[in-house]
Amino acid sequence: MIRIFVTGGTFDKEYNELTGSLFFKDTHLPEMLRLGRSRIDVSISTLMMIDSLEMTDEDRDLVARHCETCEEKQIVITHGTDTLTDTAKILANNVRDKTIVLTGAMVPYKFGSSDGLFNLGSALAFVQTLRTGVYIAMNGKCFNWNNVRKNKQTGMFEELG
Amino acid sequence: MIRIFVTGGTFDKEYNELTGSLFFKDTHLPEMLRLGRSRIDVSISTLMMIDSLEMTDEDRDLVARHCETCEEKQIVITHGTDTLTDTAKILANNVRDKTIVLTGAMVPYKFGSSDGLFNLGSALAFVQTLRTGVYIAMNGKCFNWNNVRKNKQTGMFEELG
Amino acid sequence: MIRIFVTGGTFDKEYNELTGSLFFKDTHLPEMLRLGRSRIDVSISTLMMIDSLEMTDEDRDLVARHCETCEEKQIVITHGTDTLTDTAKILANNVRDKTIVLTGAMVPYKFGSSDGLFNLGSALAFVQTLRTGVYIAMNGKCFNWNNVRKNKQTGMFEELG
Amino acid sequence: MIRIFVTGGTFDKEYNELTGSLFFKDTHLPEMLRLGRSRIDVSISTLMMIDSLEMTDEDRDLVARHCETCEEKQIVITHGTDTLTDTAKILANNVRDKTIVLTGAMVPYKFGSSDGLFNLGSALAFVQTLRTGVYIAMNGKCFNWNNVRKNKQTGMFEELG
Repeated sequence: MIRIFVTGGTFDKEYNELTGSLFFKDTHLPEMLRLGRSRIDVSISTLMMIDSLEMTDEDRDLVARHCETCEEKQIVITHGTDTLTDTAKILANNVRDKTIVLTGAMVPYKFGSSDGLFNLGSALAFVQTLRTGVYIAMNGKCFNWNNVRKNKQTGMFEELG
Repeated sequence: MIRIFVTGGTFDKEYNELTGSLFFKDTHLPEMLRLGRSRIDVSISTLMMIDSLEMTDEDRDLVARHCETCEEKQIVITHGTDTLTDTAKILANNVRDKTIVLTGAMVPYKFGSSDGLFNLGSALAFVQTLRTGVYIAMNGKCFNWNNVRKNKQTGMFEELG
Repeated sequence: MIRIFVTGGTFDKEYNELTGSLFFKDTHLPEMLRLGRSRIDVSISTLMMIDSLEMTDEDRDLVARHCETCEEKQIVITHGTDTLTDTAKILANNVRDKTIVLTGAMVPYKFGSSDGLFNLGSALAFVQTLRTGVYIAMNGKCFNWNNVRKNKQTGMFEELG
Repeated sequence: MIRIFVTGGTFDKEYNELTGSLFFKDTHLPEMLRLGRSRIDVSISTLMMIDSLEMTDEDRDLVARHCETCEEKQIVITHGTDTLTDTAKILANNVRDKTIVLTGAMVPYKFGSSDGLFNLGSALAFVQTLRTGVYIAMNGKCFNWNNVRKNKQTGMFEELG
């Protein structure tokens, strides 16, 4: 059994027709898993629905506590990409003996050109096969939490030096 | 570097507007990798573009030879789902010391409701993390080549007895 | 109030994941009208769900009778493109004092690249503005029933000589 | 021949992956016409690419001048919905002897759930069939310029009183 914790991020942003802006409503994770015809045993919990630029230390502590206390040993977290590495660090410092894979999307799932389904597929595969630790899965790659940064110019994740 | 061998299958089927039937033109793999914003080093070769029900022993031997002789140690093969396990068996009997992941799709990529991008994401993740051997990645899961069958009633892949 | 008669055709074809073939289930017209945020008063009736190559004389008579007897003066018919002109002729010979617009699609609505929504939007506009008669709306154009044919090479509708 | 003037609006908004905000790049009108397999003779000119809330009096005068001076008698204008009626009024006061249909979209074309293709199909049909005047085509309906408002609560266009 894999636990999926939803925190919001680009993954789940929607277009508000009345205001013309982006907002959060419900998570699209169940719909995405249906689209992928996923047969993995997962349990989905929405912890928050926020842009990761607005994520506070308290929010990250909350995510860490849920990772610590949940029964599952394999955890996928959907998260905004801007502070993905910050949350990964908190988790690495606080959670033991679990395989945690954080992932995100560059384009909302509801938009035609989203990378979300690709990233979700790879995150769920990495979490089933990697040893315990905290990882970031983006762009088909998997990074150790302490060896990755988001390149603000390209939007891509890359290894440090 | 990962090698991707394309053999056709539902993945790459398109709709022919003039005849109203499904057919093969070019592979959509490059487009799918762009959509996933993939940053993995891959080399794509189209070996054939056929429905897997039409795949002959010669075709499977051809796939096996390419897997043996290519430089890459990690190989993903896109393949029709109906005879995915037959090709996997040939590969298991003929190719040594490589990690080979076969994957497919239940719905063509060009249709709105395709599982292809999810499967491709997971196949590329599995091939990077699993030890040498031949595997089938479908529906978020990864099966050993000799412990899986396609359930014709549900369309899903499942472990043997 | 506009009446929409559904007869099937490419518009409503779906992909059967288990057999890999195309088939009919339910009409997508209500979903398409929702997508278009349509605020037109319409009443939708499914008369049949068939490929227009399989449409018999009895089927066309049935369509004609429904056009004659329904209360609405404005009628849109969704129809396979192969025999669209045959049905139009039967309607022109049998239905008086109504504006009837037949339309179709080159690619099923459920596929990513469908022209269906464009054609539906134009058909609903033409039926509101044209005088009584039988018309075919395809590719943004509107043809009189007796001055149009489908070009089998291009798939496009065009005026006669 | 129909002239299409592009002014921007929701129709053409795109998602910026790097900033997570919406922006304008190029118009999607040619792509939309291809998707609709349109066979209408059109000539597309981009006059501006802006949100209609930012449209100035000078901008509206520019649109009016182009409508006056272009050779075509049938004109479709894509426009943000928030001030669609303001521009329509300027056009009605300044342009003679042409059929002008303004249209827009509630959701950007590039997002999965856009009404844009439906509206474009209906606008192109209305402009071919209506007598000279200025109209607004939204939600499948066509309104006279002086008898319509956007309902800010529902996002829908409706007749006055």
